[in-house]
Order: sequence, then structure tokens, then C-alpha cells
Amino acid sequence: MNAEIICVGTEILLGNIIDTNSAYISNKLSVLGINLFFHTSVGDNEKRLISTVKAAAKRSDLIILTGGLGPTYDDITKEATAKAFGKSLYLDCESLDKIKAYFNAIGREMTENNVKQAYIIEGSKILQNDNGTAPGMVFETKYGAKNVTVAILPGPPHEMSYMFDNYLYPYLEGRSGQSFFSSVLKIFGVGESKIESDLKDIMQTSKNPTLAPYAKETEVELRLTSAAKTREEAEVRFAPIISKIKSMYGKNVYGIDVANLETALYNKLKERNLTVSFAESCTGGLLAKRLTDVAGASEVMGFSAVTYSAKAKELILNVPSDIIKNHGVISRECAIEMAKGITKLANSDIGVSITGVAGPDKAEDKPVGLVYVGIYTPSRAPLCFEFNLTRGRSSRSRENIRNIASSNAIYLTINAIDEWGL
Amino acid sequence: MNAEIICVGTEILLGNIIDTNSAYISNKLSVLGINLFFHTSVGDNEKRLISTVKAAAKRSDLIILTGGLGPTYDDITKEATAKAFGKSLYLDCESLDKIKAYFNAIGREMTENNVKQAYIIEGSKILQNDNGTAPGMVFETKYGAKNVTVAILPGPPHEMSYMFDNYLYPYLEGRSGQSFFSSVLKIFGVGESKIESDLKDIMQTSKNPTLAPYAKETEVELRLTSAAKTREEAEVRFAPIISKIKSMYGKNVYGIDVANLETALYNKLKERNLTVSFAESCTGGLLAKRLTDVAGASEVMGFSAVTYSAKAKELILNVPSDIIKNHGVISRECAIEMAKGITKLANSDIGVSITGVAGPDKAEDKPVGLVYVGIYTPSRAPLCFEFNLTRGRSSRSRENIRNIASSNAIYLTINAIDEWGL
Repeated sequence: MNAEIICVGTEILLGNIIDTNSAYISNKLSVLGINLFFHTSVGDNEKRLISTVKAAAKRSDLIILTGGLGPTYDDITKEATAKAFGKSLYLDCESLDKIKAYFNAIGREMTENNVKQAYIIEGSKILQNDNGTAPGMVFETKYGAKNVTVAILPGPPHEMSYMFDNYLYPYLEGRSGQSFFSSVLKIFGVGESKIESDLKDIMQTSKNPTLAPYAKETEVELRLTSAAKTREEAEVRFAPIISKIKSMYGKNVYGIDVANLETALYNKLKERNLTVSFAESCTGGLLAKRLTDVAGASEVMGFSAVTYSAKAKELILNVPSDIIKNHGVISRECAIEMAKGITKLANSDIGVSITGVAGPDKAEDKPVGLVYVGIYTPSRAPLCFEFNLTRGRSSRSRENIRNIASSNAIYLTINAIDEWGL
Repeated sequence: MNAEIICVGTEILLGNIIDTNSAYISNKLSVLGINLFFHTSVGDNEKRLISTVKAAAKRSDLIILTGGLGPTYDDITKEATAKAFGKSLYLDCESLDKIKAYFNAIGREMTENNVKQAYIIEGSKILQNDNGTAPGMVFETKYGAKNVTVAILPGPPHEMSYMFDNYLYPYLEGRSGQSFFSSVLKIFGVGESKIESDLKDIMQTSKNPTLAPYAKETEVELRLTSAAKTREEAEVRFAPIISKIKSMYGKNVYGIDVANLETALYNKLKERNLTVSFAESCTGGLLAKRLTDVAGASEVMGFSAVTYSAKAKELILNVPSDIIKNHGVISRECAIEMAKGITKLANSDIGVSITGVAGPDKAEDKPVGLVYVGIYTPSRAPLCFEFNLTRGRSSRSRENIRNIASSNAIYLTINAIDEWGL
């Protein structure tokens, strides 16, 4: 089955917003084994939208449109799509009641123009919107002699993704007559090209499950997908590949079906009943911010410090002034003292420090990208790691260096907990 | 002039990466007064890419392609584009020398397949790549009887954006025979729809300069663009509109041609020779992270604390235990004490605190979205602001609440500095 996505909205063409919906949907379609050949973004213009829908109907079996379901006159996705396929719209009373109930729940009055949102293309299955007012829809139709499935989803990402996952995905899965199950392995610290070359055979030959890599800024995701009757059956198929990948990359496989590094650290700390504290210099709060992105982080972190100046490192963390005088604040020695200092001050089980040069300028005559991560726990010898985050890259940005430094600190803390046997 | 963007790469269609290049380019084209009607993403497939380029050539005057300029066999953008217009490629020795020099500079050897990147479509003006190996190019050609301009840029955003700004933008501007100048007003705390309705007349009638709104998560940007001979001439045209907008929204216009709120705060602190410190609870380091996103932040912030637990608020910030017992940590009283405590501990001129409920669960039986911001300076009465960040919205996420809370804290600190006359 070949699919394409049409994203509707002049605000996209003005560069006002970035289209994240297409990537979200693409990712899910690949799990369903549906090939996706085109994304198109088009403005709120009837003529161009109709021609885009018709071009899609000629070459694809499934068209997913997002956006343009709002209440105003320039929201024309349903009207233009109906015209492209010679269909009409009808007022769906049940959808109208839901819209009224939605406004009631948020304590606002429904205005007359919202009635427009309750119109549905004839012959559609309605996809309900649990996070907003515009219902979605999906219908199957002919275009010439060709069968086409057309789905229409709202534009706001939190409305779209919830509707896609809960209503359109099961519909598409049902049509395929199969159920699909996925597991995602998260790998930190191994390059994408190495992983692709190591696993090329499995990626190219294994059909059930399939194995697909996704490279992120500082890690690689490997997604296993299986067509199976039950989750258990899929997991039986996953097991030998997962154990092979684990034996190849060991602790670099930091998690399976876990959202991200910070969630893996949170889980590890919670499981071992440990607390952590951070002393950040060049990352300036990013590390603490990332751990507290995870709901429930208060169980594992009570206090962290951003000690940006040398003085703060001395006064707050008790880094000896001799260390700073002799080695500078961007040094192994200072990183270890910072980790030790924050552990004591926060009375935590583990203390993690980051000090380095995020750029754009050198500091202490040390190069941009030089970063030290210190990890401390009272009962063990402290750890310190050095990174040269610009080596081999001409232009890593300050933001990039801070992200990679904090990712490494989180990854190394997970490892330290295991290696120390805490 | 009508334009469209074609983004090339199977990784986009797999949802592996989000296309941010199209939004970047769209934004800049709107400044140049170029209409953009389509974005298309297409995979690394010659047949589909050629058909996409031909469809674009039929309907648009300017086509900008991004991606697919890498050294591997599946990078086919140049080859497919050349075929679409019946053109050939030649090896450009100067580009090859630059690629060799690039590898030399980063201390790695150039592999044979990188030679592919030095091939250029005949008749092109070469756009040099200062951040990578693949040169870009732009050429003008006929498609049938129609004139088309075709530009090809690399896919990695930091290579693409630098090349676009420094080489393609001036080229397009030169062709238009006009120079364009922009100023962007940043407005915090006024809704997009109010601004659009207030300024509808200017937006619809003013042609030079034009005025266009861009809504972001917590603010609205208003971009003025003028075709003019010099920056000075453009600024003369901007002046009456800027002064009108300032008189309408006062201090909500927090900056002109400033990158964001945190940069505005940094500038204000530096200009007044002030230092700030943060004591964060529910934002968990986000506020400090945002200020330290700005290079040079060490001049205005030496220390900040993430006091996530009640105990840390007491022990580190000296919030009296009675305050916590009587009012809870999510309270006006606690916010003020936190701001006071961090000011003393950091020995800064100003202390800013955030305490609240980021969710997903209630805390102290207080609702998700309730947030207090405290601002303290020794010589003035402390300030405290209360926010209900979920009012009127059913599903604001933890991330969203943290972002809005930190934006408000930054905005209010800028205001406090002015109002206090520091």
C-alpha cells in the first residue's frame, strides 16, 4: 500500500510553524508496513488543494490530510477534499453535540462558526477528537477506476496524534487484517553508520520482525516491528534479535521501550531507591531540566546547583581554591570536587557534575567543546570523563555541545550505578 | 514570483527526521516578497524526484531543493535535477579543492566517494558551503517556454541555513533589483487574535513596509519588511508603525530585533550592570538553562539553584519552616522567600523564584498549572505573581506549563528592572 500526506495551512508555507505532524504519521505508517512516497504542504487555497488531492489520488492508495478543520472561512480542507472526489457534506448532529459539550466543559460558549466543524463528508467513518472540537474522518472511494482511502485529521499536533493513535491507526491496522507490535531499543554512544553496517543483514533479510534504525542527535533507535496475533507472539520473535544486539553493544543499549535517556536514569534511580544531585557549569541547568522533564522526578532529585562562576564553585560547592588556581575550573580535578560538593550539600546518594567550554569562545585558554563529567558517591572512588565535543566537526554549536554533554552525563550516571552495584 | 520547496530524503518520509529547512526557507522568502505555494518531501528515488521537479517546473518560477547532496550512491538530487532539465554535470576542480581542504582542516582523509560532491550542474553559479563538504548551486533555465530558477542546497540545517543566508538570499535579492530590510518586534503577553484584530488595517493596507504576525508558543512576533535602498531608509519607514505598536502595547513590546526573551533579559542585565540568580522548583532548571543558552551569560549569572524538594527550600534557601507549614511550598509566601534566599546565597542583585504544579498530578491539593513567580532585590518590596496556566485549556502538558512559567518569569524580571529603576 502506498500512502502520502498532505499538510494544509498557509502558516506552514509562511514558515510560521514547522510541520511535525508529517514526521509523526510517517513514523507510525512505517510500523504498519505502509510505504510513504510524498509529503506535500499546501496553503488554504481551494484550487491548489483540490489539484494536490487529485494528484495524490492518481498515484497513492492512502491519502492522509492534516489541518484546515478550524471554524473560520479559510479552513477548507473538508470542502476541497469533498469536491475533489465529487462528494457532499452533511451536518452530523452527534458531532455537533460533542462540540457543544466540549465548550461546556472548558466553560466557554460555542460560537456559531463552530457549527462548520460538525460537517462530515458523506460515507465517512467519524474519528472523534478527544482534545479539541474538530472531528476527523476517513472514507474509501473510487478515483477513476482506482480505490483510494482518504483520512482527514485536525492540524494541532496534540489533537492529531491522539486521534491518529486511537482511531485511525486501529482502522488502518484492521484493514490490513494484521496486528503490528513494536519494540524500540535505545543505543547511546555507537555511531549510526557502524550500527547500519553491523546489522545490515538483519535489516535487509528479516521480514517479521523488521528492524529499522532511526538516528537522533546523540543516539540511535532501533525499532523492531512484528505482524503477530498477540504482543507475546511478537516478543518471541523479537527475543533472538534483541539478545544479539545486546551482545553486540552491551551497556550501550541503555533501554528498551523507554522514552529517552532521562527517563532511563529516573527509572534506574527509582528502582534502586537512590537520589541524585547535579552541579552544572557549562550546561547551566540543562541536566536538571532534563531529569525534571520526567513526571515524578521529585522522588529522585531534591536539589541541584548551577554553579556558573568560579566563585560559586568555591563558595557553594566547596571546591578548594587551590584546585581552581592550579587546574582551572575546566579540569578533571574541579569536576570531581564539584560532584563531591553537590553530593554533600544535597545529601544525595550520587552527585554528577559538568564543567567545560560550550563556546562560542574559549575559556581558560581551553578549546570549545572540552567538557568534563564527574560522578561521585561516598563509598566509591570518584569517576571523571573527558570529552572533546568539537573534534572532527568544524561548527558544533553551543546548543549542540550542551545537549551532547548532558546526554553523556546522564548515560554515564546510569552506567556508574550499575558498575558500582548501588 | 511563485516558488516551491522540494525536500529530498527517504529519512524524512520515514519520520526519522523533521523537515525544519522548509520552514526556515519559507520565512526568508516571505521577507523577499516571494510567494510560496508548495512544500514537497520526496525520497531518494530518481523517478519520483524527477517527476516532482518537473511538476514544480510547470507551476513555479523558483524551485529550491534541499538534501541529497551527500557522497553516497543514494544521494541523487543533482543527478535527477540535471535529468529533469536535460542538463549535464561536470567536475568542478575548485569545489574539489575546497572539499579536500575541509577534510584537511578537520584532520581526516577525504575518501574517494566525496569526489561526487564536487560535480556541478552546467551553467550554475556555485554556492559555497562554509560548514560542510557539499557545495550548493543555482541556475536559470527554460522548461518548455517558461523561465525557471533552480537552487540546490545541502540537507543538514546548519549547512543549509548558512548557505541560504550568505549566498542564495543575496542572489535572489539581487535578481529582484531591490533590497529588503526587516525589523522584528517581539510582543509578550498579548494574544495573537487581539494583535491581528488591532493591526488588521496596517497589515492589509501597508505595502512598504509590510507587517506580518508570527505566533509562537508564548509570544507574537511582528515582522516589518521594507524594500528600500538602505537600512536607514527602511528604518524611516518603520518608525511610525513601531511607535504606534509601542503606544498600543507598551512594555509588552519587550524587544526589537532581539532573538528571544532570554536574550532581552541578558541585554537588560548587562546594560544595567546587574546580576541575577534563580531558585527553581517546578521548572527544575529550565530558567537557568534558558539564560545560559545566551553566550556570555556568565557575566550576569554566577549561581542558581534547583530546589525541588521542600527540604532543599528550607536548608539551601532558608525558607522558614513555618512558611512551608502554613502556606505550603506552592504559595506566594514561599515564592518570595525563595527569591530572597537565592539573592542572599548567590550575592546577586536580583533573585527570581518559580514554584508551582507542572503536573500531571496535583500537589498540596493545588491544581496543575498553579504557578508563583517571586522577584526580589534588597532595596525594594518583593514582587510575586500568580498564574493559572491551565485555565481555559483542557490539556496543557507539563512541558508547556514549564515553558510558559519560565517565559513569564523572564518577562516579569525584565519589567521589574525597569519599574524598580535598577
